[in-house]
Amino acid sequence: MSSLQPSDLAPGLLLGEGVQFGEGVELGGNVVIHSGTRIGNFCVIGDSAVVGKPPMLGQHSTASSDQPPPATLAEDAVVCPGAVIGAGAEIGTAAVIGDQAQIRERARIGAESVVGRGSAVDNDVTVGNRVKIQSNCYVTAGAVVEDDAFLGPGVMLTNDDTMGRHAAGDSPDGPILRRACRVGGGAVVLPGVEIGEEAVIGAGAVVLHDVSARKVMVGVPARELRDVGDEELLERWR
Amino acid sequence: MSSLQPSDLAPGLLLGEGVQFGEGVELGGNVVIHSGTRIGNFCVIGDSAVVGKPPMLGQHSTASSDQPPPATLAEDAVVCPGAVIGAGAEIGTAAVIGDQAQIRERARIGAESVVGRGSAVDNDVTVGNRVKIQSNCYVTAGAVVEDDAFLGPGVMLTNDDTMGRHAAGDSPDGPILRRACRVGGGAVVLPGVEIGEEAVIGAGAVVLHDVSARKVMVGVPARELRDVGDEELLERWR
Amino acid sequence: MSSLQPSDLAPGLLLGEGVQFGEGVELGGNVVIHSGTRIGNFCVIGDSAVVGKPPMLGQHSTASSDQPPPATLAEDAVVCPGAVIGAGAEIGTAAVIGDQAQIRERARIGAESVVGRGSAVDNDVTVGNRVKIQSNCYVTAGAVVEDDAFLGPGVMLTNDDTMGRHAAGDSPDGPILRRACRVGGGAVVLPGVEIGEEAVIGAGAVVLHDVSARKVMVGVPARELRDVGDEELLERWR
Repeated sequence: MSSLQPSDLAPGLLLGEGVQFGEGVELGGNVVIHSGTRIGNFCVIGDSAVVGKPPMLGQHSTASSDQPPPATLAEDAVVCPGAVIGAGAEIGTAAVIGDQAQIRERARIGAESVVGRGSAVDNDVTVGNRVKIQSNCYVTAGAVVEDDAFLGPGVMLTNDDTMGRHAAGDSPDGPILRRACRVGGGAVVLPGVEIGEEAVIGAGAVVLHDVSARKVMVGVPARELRDVGDEELLERWR
Repeated sequence: MSSLQPSDLAPGLLLGEGVQFGEGVELGGNVVIHSGTRIGNFCVIGDSAVVGKPPMLGQHSTASSDQPPPATLAEDAVVCPGAVIGAGAEIGTAAVIGDQAQIRERARIGAESVVGRGSAVDNDVTVGNRVKIQSNCYVTAGAVVEDDAFLGPGVMLTNDDTMGRHAAGDSPDGPILRRACRVGGGAVVLPGVEIGEEAVIGAGAVVLHDVSARKVMVGVPARELRDVGDEELLERWR
Repeated sequence: MSSLQPSDLAPGLLLGEGVQFGEGVELGGNVVIHSGTRIGNFCVIGDSAVVGKPPMLGQHSTASSDQPPPATLAEDAVVCPGAVIGAGAEIGTAAVIGDQAQIRERARIGAESVVGRGSAVDNDVTVGNRVKIQSNCYVTAGAVVEDDAFLGPGVMLTNDDTMGRHAAGDSPDGPILRRACRVGGGAVVLPGVEIGEEAVIGAGAVVLHDVSARKVMVGVPARELRDVGDEELLERWR
């Protein structure tokens, strides 16, 4: 962290070494950008945001302690005030990272996706294109979120059935959210669960088992309610 | 954002143009206050808070992209460290915005209300007077929260039954929380639901349908348990 | 707050009076450290973190308004970017406070414990050693979290059955989480509930009543499923 230096490019800006800026980048106040970060054309970074944060792992963390590459923001990406973007994260074209959100090291956020205010995407997670993650969600390590998925506010994905009592080398067992599935606000998804394409999980549901494509599931534990109708499919709405 | 300039009024302070300060305002370190913000007498703004943030919308956001007016903090308002207050937000007399909370553009927070640490109030929402929103809540766009309502920690309000598959111009269908209702921790409220005056929602409930005044509802889905007794009414407790 | 002054020790650093640093402390950019804070050897404090924040209470807060002592970070403690640590908080040896987390005044976090990203620990709470609190949790005032407890993402602890309608002097009635219990993601724990040693609460459960040691509870409301087997006990896994 010692390589940060004040910069005249914006008020209160602190820059690491070798940060690359595209054209037309807008920076708020008191932004911190760590060494090597690459910022594409017309990106916007809000006040007090931190980009390219090196990992600060606990002694027992299961995340990789390899030094990640720099963070990358593609063209037109927006990072809102107070957000923290880890080293090695890749933020896609025109993606929006909301106020006070967190993207951990090596996570990839696809083009035109939105990570809502106060939400977190864990290390090494891949989020597809045009995904909408609303406010206060947690996308856990090992999860996959495919294109056009929708997560309502406060969705919690989990990745460890043992809650910490597993062999040291075990990989996190994050849920798989397939293309264009929709998960309602406050829903909880158990480790390793796969939610099929165009499936719907009702608000507040707790999903214990895999969900087939186009099924609508509700309740605690989640049970099948009906199928998603043709008129609800994504292809009708874009 | 380029109009921010360092100011000697407080350490690390960045100010936009034409910010108005009342008497006796206290400012923490590294605060950012955007152009035109009006700060009332005896307000307190904590470290690293951002006040009057211009909208930074995604390309597909349904929030209004009209340029909002400046933010306003009434007398004795408190904005805690790391909070982000949007442009056009109106923070009422002696209201408290907790650490790392977010108030979006044009939201109004009534007098003596508290928005807890890490909670978010969306654009254009009106929150009444003496409302208590505890930690990690999400008050969604289109919601109304009347005077003296109470939201326990982690309450999630939702506003879109289609989860993104609706006509472009549709308004958000946020819940209505009537005067002095109480919503327990971790509860989820479905789009458009009205919770009546002095009604109570149990912790962890999922509320699918309107709730009449003074009813106590619990469970998933929420079902009626009993009525609120006279001895529990707000008038007995203030 | 007026005692903060710029310091050359790190870029953008603001220091109160009499802050004590051990050897080998690493500081990120734009950090704020309030008067009297004691920082142990080899601590790491990330960008835009705030340490030793004085209380900023609302007019009706039930938290003590006594001026707390300074904050203390023991050796090897890590405070990540955007975290806010209150005055009088005690962060234990090698504990990690995640990005954008909050530790309120006088809370104690034990050695080697982790408070996850975006989680909050309320004023005066005691968290034991080797506790793992994952992301977006809320540990309410009056709670006790004993050694080796595990809280999955989004766990909400509550402390007030009346939701604000009690006599002014009443103490908060936070849950008691006994040694090595595990609480699944998205679970909600009602006020005053005691969760026994080595008990397990399933993801998304709502816990209304005390849970005996080594019981596994699931559902809404939580009901007994089975006992925790000998092979699952913590002593087997460390």
